[in-house]
This record gives sequence, C-alpha cells and structure tokens, in this order.
Amino acid sequence: MPISVCDRLAELGEIGRGERGLTRQLFTEPEHRARALLARWGRELNCEVVQDRIGNLFVRRAGRSNAPALQFGSHLDTVLDGGAYDGAYGVAGGVSVLAELAAHGVETQRPFELAAWAGEEGSRFPVGCLGSAVYVGWEHLDEMLELRGDDGMTLAQARNGPYGLLPDVPIRDDFPRPAAYAELHIEQGPVLERAGVPLGVVTAIAGMHRYTVRVNGEAGHAGTVPMPVRRDAFSATAELALMLESAAREIGDCVATIGWLAITPNQTNIVPGLVECRIDARSTDPVRLKELDRRIHALAKEVAGRRSVRIDVHRFEERAPTPLDEGLKGILRETLDAHSLAYLDVPSGAVHDAMCIASICPAAMLFVPSIAGASHVGHERTAPADLERGVDAFKAWLLAIDRAL
Amino acid sequence: MPISVCDRLAELGEIGRGERGLTRQLFTEPEHRARALLARWGRELNCEVVQDRIGNLFVRRAGRSNAPALQFGSHLDTVLDGGAYDGAYGVAGGVSVLAELAAHGVETQRPFELAAWAGEEGSRFPVGCLGSAVYVGWEHLDEMLELRGDDGMTLAQARNGPYGLLPDVPIRDDFPRPAAYAELHIEQGPVLERAGVPLGVVTAIAGMHRYTVRVNGEAGHAGTVPMPVRRDAFSATAELALMLESAAREIGDCVATIGWLAITPNQTNIVPGLVECRIDARSTDPVRLKELDRRIHALAKEVAGRRSVRIDVHRFEERAPTPLDEGLKGILRETLDAHSLAYLDVPSGAVHDAMCIASICPAAMLFVPSIAGASHVGHERTAPADLERGVDAFKAWLLAIDRAL
Repeated sequence: MPISVCDRLAELGEIGRGERGLTRQLFTEPEHRARALLARWGRELNCEVVQDRIGNLFVRRAGRSNAPALQFGSHLDTVLDGGAYDGAYGVAGGVSVLAELAAHGVETQRPFELAAWAGEEGSRFPVGCLGSAVYVGWEHLDEMLELRGDDGMTLAQARNGPYGLLPDVPIRDDFPRPAAYAELHIEQGPVLERAGVPLGVVTAIAGMHRYTVRVNGEAGHAGTVPMPVRRDAFSATAELALMLESAAREIGDCVATIGWLAITPNQTNIVPGLVECRIDARSTDPVRLKELDRRIHALAKEVAGRRSVRIDVHRFEERAPTPLDEGLKGILRETLDAHSLAYLDVPSGAVHDAMCIASICPAAMLFVPSIAGASHVGHERTAPADLERGVDAFKAWLLAIDRAL
Repeated sequence: MPISVCDRLAELGEIGRGERGLTRQLFTEPEHRARALLARWGRELNCEVVQDRIGNLFVRRAGRSNAPALQFGSHLDTVLDGGAYDGAYGVAGGVSVLAELAAHGVETQRPFELAAWAGEEGSRFPVGCLGSAVYVGWEHLDEMLELRGDDGMTLAQARNGPYGLLPDVPIRDDFPRPAAYAELHIEQGPVLERAGVPLGVVTAIAGMHRYTVRVNGEAGHAGTVPMPVRRDAFSATAELALMLESAAREIGDCVATIGWLAITPNQTNIVPGLVECRIDARSTDPVRLKELDRRIHALAKEVAGRRSVRIDVHRFEERAPTPLDEGLKGILRETLDAHSLAYLDVPSGAVHDAMCIASICPAAMLFVPSIAGASHVGHERTAPADLERGVDAFKAWLLAIDRAL
C-alpha cells in the first residue's frame, strides 16, 4: 500500500522546522534536503529524476507515447516561518499520484511529469516564481544567477555551493513545453472552509496592483493645534482607507488592503505630518482591477481636497490577471461531478507557478481548504481527510486530462 | 540702553545649536553654558544669583520690602533638536525686564525673582517640569536624584559632574513660597497668528489623558481573504480615529490625537491582525475631558462590535487641567487695555512650569504668537516685534501685580 500524502507531508514538514514555523529558502540546507528527499521518492518509484540549471526538479514517469508530458507540481521552498502545506502539498500530492499509478500498474497515454519549481516564494532572492519564470522564458537564467540574496550571496554562488543543485541528479538543458499543466494547492484563504466545500476549481489567478501613498499634512503639537485648523496626515489616511474599503466592497470580486503604514514622526504628542502607506489591490477581473485603480486616484484627490493635504499615489507594481484554461477546468468539473465530489469555483488571490506555466500551455488548478484560511504561518493546516480527498480528485483529473488530450 | 530681548535670545540661541535645531538637555555642556550665561547676566545687573540643589537658577532683584517675591520665569533646557524660543523667551524676557527696571532705577514693592526652572522638557531624565515639581514638593529631590537618563547616568551623577550645578553660585536650600508667579512664553500653536492678535492671556493649562489602544483583528493573506469576511485591525483603527476626530470637534474646546501607531506585522501583502496606537486627549475643561473619555470607550466598543475585533483601551496617563489665577488674569487684561494692546484669551495645550507653581501661589501666563504655530523644531520662530511687545507687556503686568499685591 502506497505511503499516504499525509505521511509524506509529515516527513517533509520536519525539514526546516523551527520554533515558529518552517523555513526552507532556495539553496539552503533544509531546502536542499527537501529536494533530495523528492529525488529519492522519485527513484523509489522507478521514475526518471532530472533537474535544470535554475534548480527545478522533475520526476518523470514514462507514458505509452513519448509525446509532450502532462506536467503537474508546485514548490518545496517556503517563506520565513511558513507552513508545511503551501507548495509542499502539490509536490507530495504529485508523488502520491505517481505512487498510486505505479501500485496499480496504470499506463498513461503521455509521460506524467511532476515538477518542483525552484524558489516560488522569493523569500531569499527577490524574484517570486523564480524557477517557473525561467522555465517559461520570462526571466533569463544568466541574469537571475546574478541576483543577490538577503545574505549577500549571489544566486550563482548559492546554486554552485553545497546546498545548490543535487550532485547525483542529471541536468536537463532544454525546457520542454508540456501538453498541459495542473497544480494542486491549499487555498490559503477561508472561502472553501466557510462554504463547507472540500474542493475548489480555481477560476483564475488574480492580477495585482501595488501603490505607495504619501500623505503630506502638517505636523503640530498635539496640545496646541485646535482640531478645526489641523491638517492631520493620519486622519486623512484613515479616511482614504475607509473609502477604499467601501469601494472594494461595492465593486465586488476584488480586494484592497493597507497592510504597511508608517507615520512620521510617530510620537504620541505630535499631530502626524506625514504618513506613508502601501495599497495592495487584487482581482481576477481586469475590469474590476481598472475600476479599483480609478477609484484609488479619485479618492486620494477627494480626501486631499477636503483636508488640505497633499496625497501622492504611485503604482509601483502591476500584474495582469491570469485566466486558467477553460478546457482543463471543464474536465475537472466533469471529473468531480462523476465522483460526486462537491466543489466551488474560487479565484486565487495568491500567485502560483501555474501563472507562469499558463503562458506556454493550458494550465489549471485545484484547491483544498485551509483551516481558518491561515497560510504563510507555522500553524497553516488542512484536515487530513481534505488532503487525501484532494489527491484522489487530482489523480482522477490528471487521468481524465490524459485521456482527453 | 539695555540689550534687547532679541539680542539675548540670539546669544542663547547659539548655545547647543546643531544642524536641525537646538539641543540643551539638563546638565549637559550646552545647558550648563546657558545657565552660566544667565548667572553672568544676573550679576551684570547687580542681582543676587542663587541656585537650589535640583538646578533651578534664580536671579533676584531686591525690592523695598523683604516680603515674598514676585516670581517669574521659564526654562533654558530644550527637547532634542528644539527651537530657540520655547522656555528661553521667558528667561531672556525676564532678564530684559530686570534690565529695564535697573536702567530706569525703578524700585519695586517686593523682590522680583526670575527663575530658570531645571529640566522642564523631560528630554534627558523621564520627568517633565522636574525643577518646578521639586520646588513645589510634587517630587522629592532624593528620589529624583536616582532617576536614570537616556545615557544611563543618574541625575545625581549628572548634577555632580562638570555640567551640573554652577560652581560659583551659592546654593539656597529652602523653597520660598512666592507672592505670585507669572510666565511669559511663546504660544507653540497657531491660534494667535491666525487671529492676527499679538498677545494671549492664558485661560488655563489643559489637562491630558493618554490611552493605549490595542485593536485585535485577524491577520490574513491580502490576496485570499475576501473583503466581507475580513477582521482588519487597521480598518477598525481608521474608523475609530475618524469617529474620535468627529467627537472632539463636536465636543469643542478639546483636542484628540493619534500620533503614534504600529501595525503588526506591517507587511504589504498581509491584512493587519493587530494595531496598537496611542490617543492623546486634552482640554482645559474637566467636563470636556471626561466627555472625551466616555466617548473614547464608547466608540471603541461600537467599532469592536461592528467589526468583530477586540479593542482594549487603557488610560496610562492622567493630568487634571490647571486653572490660572483669575486675579492675575484680571490685572493682565486691565494692563493690556490700558496700553491699548490687543489680546485674546487662549488655552495652553502644552504644559509649562506655571502648572506646578500654581499649586503654591497665584499663577498666570502671557503668550506671544508662534510663526505657523511651529514649536519643538529648529525653525520655531516668533517675529522680533512680537517678542519686544511681549516683554513690554510683561513688564507692565509685573509692575501692576507688584502694585496690586
């Protein structure tokens, strides 16, 4: 009987464990150990194990034909003090699928290729989805190798060091275009749990706009400047925040967050003269994202006028939404219906490697619930039954894709 | 012809000057130099110069009788990177008054005693109005001497060191109760300038309540938690801030400020789970201060209920308003009327040594305008004409008090 996905996750979850969570940053000892474990699992299943020069690791099970592979996977790296499920579930789940196929001697049409993408979190080197972005050609390997990590080491130095590429795994220099790509992942949000539904068909990966906002008011003594003549930068920011919250609720199917804020001088007895904050706005719908953008500028202008402050809004990051493949989503819904499994269509507010891979082949994703919606924290959890059900559904989906392609 | 108050302020204003402002902390070299300059000015005017064991410095001009003195003064210490007028104006202005009296051979009924109170700003040792608080017995000298400054040195060590008490000035061990106390000070706010009125009769020194506010919401991924299910601690804080602002405007003659705030974890992509902030609420009217207190708790409860967050409000500092003496204010208004000088009744939102001295004798204050209301900053200014007019009015007031007592 194959090892359960929960057991594999438990084994992976010991690697890099600290007091407050899991830390496996690209090309560090724990992350290297996690890749080595995956390579061992692949070899135990008699699969071909290869890696490329950015550190992506592939476990490939031959099919009847040598046609382009059906690819699936996720990542093994984590944020600082992250959880044991984000990324790891898609990789361990993929291994479980390969193990099931082997246990039952299932032959597939095409090769099945599990990918563990390198450095998805961008927690050591400042580029997210590093491995998948290089794979699809969004980033160039040579340029990426010059990236410098938080510890001052370049990506090339880290990759060539003791915790870099796996010494006993052959290197593949080409980036074969798969026939299709599927990713199994925890939701990292509360929608499925709140709905009481165990599976999510991901509609799209949200686009994101990020803004810096500088609110310039006038500093003053908290005791001597009367309320009516104040130009309090924090009050203006508070007003903008509440109006933005209302706007996002009104537009619907989008989110807007002020998660980072700094008051200058930040003293109890001084009316704030300057507030800087950042807005993170997301939607899977480009029209809603554009409407949010319009509102952010309009609200800033309105508040600035009403409160005689200056508000400068600067968009410093912009990413379009990624629609996921309708064909693959259709096959997934049919599969779930056929197995009488309940599901919900849900957006992905977070980024995944599927965002990159969707640019070279049809791609889609399956979510399982996150307890209390918690992710990127040590107490990130998914119920074992949900993990097992997710792998079963994922396997059925992959086989259906293989038949349909 | 006596030296003008502007020239004296200019000379004092060179002591402790740095790039961004003036720094004269109690018992440091610049502050010691400022006290030494005052002692020299006092001796040049043939006044008696004495100090007490906390560092208060007195310049005393004899009167016809040896009755309790008419005391006036302010302080020579500054905040970090402060201005040249806060405190220094009241001391230099007092010297100018004594110089004028000497120049014209004016004999007063009582001794006139100028006081430079030690450590009003509390910028080195953590007690404000240190010298005047010890003088009136609110604080005990021996306990204060054990206070530790930001640099780790105790007050006793600093006072006994090279920049402590003045070596050539006799020590007075008693704390004589003056007949009355008057303080000349810059407004440190924008009210007089905005009204275009050059003098302010201070109605009272505001009382102050300070609160820590902890808003406990639920942290979450900025992309994956839908707006309707968020328990965003920052949005809740923003709502509380705006409602508090409205309440303070509605109550009138009071101020409420959120000048310090910290978000946890303060990351662009995380919905804030915890916000801590501080509220500084002031009024010269105890009824309004109490109403503000009631509203703060009621608003916190209202916002907590509406947003399913927990808001803990804790009052950590409390100071009752200090009414100033009606008799002295009446004499001041009559004097200004007699000299056809325009004035406004204004509250003092900031604390002054007069707050302490008012507990042992009748006390009152006269304000001059602050340009743009700026204070506690290097660019703190008052127009020279306003400085001169203030000293003339102050002298006339002191003489009127001397006649009336």
